[in-house]
Amino acid sequence: MSVTAAQGFRAAGIAAGIKQNGNPDLALVVNDGPRLAAAGVFTSNRVKAAPVLWSEQVLKGGVVSAVILNSGGANACTGPQGFQDTHATAERVAEVLDGVNAGEVAVASTGLIGVTLPMDKLLPGVAAAAGELSAHGGEKAAIAIKTTDSVHKTSVVTKDGWTVGGMAKGAGMLAPGLATMLVVLTTDADLESAVLDRALRDATRLTFDRVDSDGCMSTNDTVLLLASGASEVTPEYAEFAAAVREVCDDLGRQLIGDAEGASKDIKVEVVNAASEADAVEVGRSIARNNLLKCALHGEDPNWGRVLSAIGTTSAAFDPNQLNVAINGVWVCKNGSVGEDRELVDMRYREVVITADLAAGAETATIWTNDLTADYVHENSAYSS
Amino acid sequence: MSVTAAQGFRAAGIAAGIKQNGNPDLALVVNDGPRLAAAGVFTSNRVKAAPVLWSEQVLKGGVVSAVILNSGGANACTGPQGFQDTHATAERVAEVLDGVNAGEVAVASTGLIGVTLPMDKLLPGVAAAAGELSAHGGEKAAIAIKTTDSVHKTSVVTKDGWTVGGMAKGAGMLAPGLATMLVVLTTDADLESAVLDRALRDATRLTFDRVDSDGCMSTNDTVLLLASGASEVTPEYAEFAAAVREVCDDLGRQLIGDAEGASKDIKVEVVNAASEADAVEVGRSIARNNLLKCALHGEDPNWGRVLSAIGTTSAAFDPNQLNVAINGVWVCKNGSVGEDRELVDMRYREVVITADLAAGAETATIWTNDLTADYVHENSAYSS
Repeated sequence: MSVTAAQGFRAAGIAAGIKQNGNPDLALVVNDGPRLAAAGVFTSNRVKAAPVLWSEQVLKGGVVSAVILNSGGANACTGPQGFQDTHATAERVAEVLDGVNAGEVAVASTGLIGVTLPMDKLLPGVAAAAGELSAHGGEKAAIAIKTTDSVHKTSVVTKDGWTVGGMAKGAGMLAPGLATMLVVLTTDADLESAVLDRALRDATRLTFDRVDSDGCMSTNDTVLLLASGASEVTPEYAEFAAAVREVCDDLGRQLIGDAEGASKDIKVEVVNAASEADAVEVGRSIARNNLLKCALHGEDPNWGRVLSAIGTTSAAFDPNQLNVAINGVWVCKNGSVGEDRELVDMRYREVVITADLAAGAETATIWTNDLTADYVHENSAYSS
Repeated sequence: MSVTAAQGFRAAGIAAGIKQNGNPDLALVVNDGPRLAAAGVFTSNRVKAAPVLWSEQVLKGGVVSAVILNSGGANACTGPQGFQDTHATAERVAEVLDGVNAGEVAVASTGLIGVTLPMDKLLPGVAAAAGELSAHGGEKAAIAIKTTDSVHKTSVVTKDGWTVGGMAKGAGMLAPGLATMLVVLTTDADLESAVLDRALRDATRLTFDRVDSDGCMSTNDTVLLLASGASEVTPEYAEFAAAVREVCDDLGRQLIGDAEGASKDIKVEVVNAASEADAVEVGRSIARNNLLKCALHGEDPNWGRVLSAIGTTSAAFDPNQLNVAINGVWVCKNGSVGEDRELVDMRYREVVITADLAAGAETATIWTNDLTADYVHENSAYSS
């Protein structure tokens, strides 16, 4: 289903030869309208890949006719040549699609940083992808954007007469602002770009921005939301925003569930914080503590490492009032030893850490993974 | 040599039975004067172990007669009982040493967080350690504070008539503010506590504070500097400060060289920064990037991960003017591909990453380690 679940979209995914192993590596998503509204959010990394710089400009117009995405190369840190390559890719998409302007073509890339793309493979691939475009092509598009992902990720929510669907890729370099990912969401709801922008920002702030697998922020993160208006339904904002958030939340969980080398999905819930910002800061600090992530890998409910992570933040709390539960067992009470740690059952993939700051009523949830020898292996054995 | 290299100090290290494996676990350092001046710096973690809370108060007086240090338990997150145990330990030291007030006894602990100390072993151990005190006991004291350290760490600098020496422990949870460590430095220079304090802060800011093995800040970091005045020499400040810094620098390098599971010692040099704060921020961001640390473990000169780490900071720079060298080869020039990465020789333990921000004239150096499967194993296979 993916990006073609909503009416008014066609997609394709092909092997253009960008990846040396011959796997699919080029995806094309086309909005056939009648509306061509779009919104996007991008990495907050100041070192941005050429396609991010390009697509940021495209999205300023609020109109996107097509998105071309390649895996097999990030086109980041590639200088003026890299930007020219992105531009040429958009121009090629405009050429092979009727009535499309290059300034309405978003481009996204993922793969190794610092390597220019094989344009002799990519440009012919654009024409080939256009020839494969289909209202059932969403699944193939989702497959073509995989890098080290073990599975492709899609999600769909259908409401009364309209749909939001999408695809995502991302498995390493997952960190806020955004998690390293390419995401394309589509909807046939009839909404203008300003509404899409608000809904997308509201959703990503609470979903992808709170996925932090390994603390490493990418140069290429891109999340796009395209609306075709083909359903001729204009939903209420709250209902539409909830649907977008539901799809983002589902895709975010799939990213965490497929993170490189991970054996645990860790939900860090911060409760009773003085502010949401405090809750997020504490959640991130816990989620990024390598010693804790190792301990959880070893199924050791090491709450001391949770406390030492909380202690590095500027959030409001009294160290003597902190409480920590692991999988529901309050192993730390009032900053000291609580219930018996032997009661904690750590056998399952999902681990829930609850940090009670006893300082207010705000909450936040951050998702992360454990740190494993497999993560080290996947990220040291070859460049990615 | 260690803490007894300088005149006027005695030390001991014994096995009190705090560690279940019977290894040495209790060290005592005594200043026999004539001066009893002291200064200390402590972890900036807001969750502080009981001995840190105690010793911070002791150091406010600028007088330390003795330091008692145990391994085998951090006495952190142990509530009111933990603080009472620290207090009782200081009282016991005062009892077994002639003319010493408990308020002049610094206490330091290291080991697992969230477990109370076996006081039935520790208190008799204090008397036993006092019985072993010797002007040649520095080595044994250094051995008794080891936790997962593979070797004990000592350093000595001797100048014209006076000496600065010291011991350190620390192998994991190494991060700024300070690196997880216990350090005791002694000198027979005749200096008052305010001078010691200035020299110690000047030194730690540039040494221990710039050691960042795994980004995890401890609850127990303690660095003490004691002066006996026994040499009857009062050196110039600059000369004294340089000697203290030299010892701190040497001990800091020994900590990095013995970090848990590490196979590389990584020197991150940031040059041409607009400010020293910018240089430190960029250095820390690079030093904490798990993906880069994995790549360096795999001897992959992955400069793209260096750039993506720089891009997450607020330092002044233009992404198109960044240059990065790995072991002297400028693999990234002007934010893009530079010299051939095949030229980088990564076979040796030490790796030097130079990040040129092209934004000013300030520099900073941060030391870190690679991320390895052994690190994961050491920190997941058992609590520490």
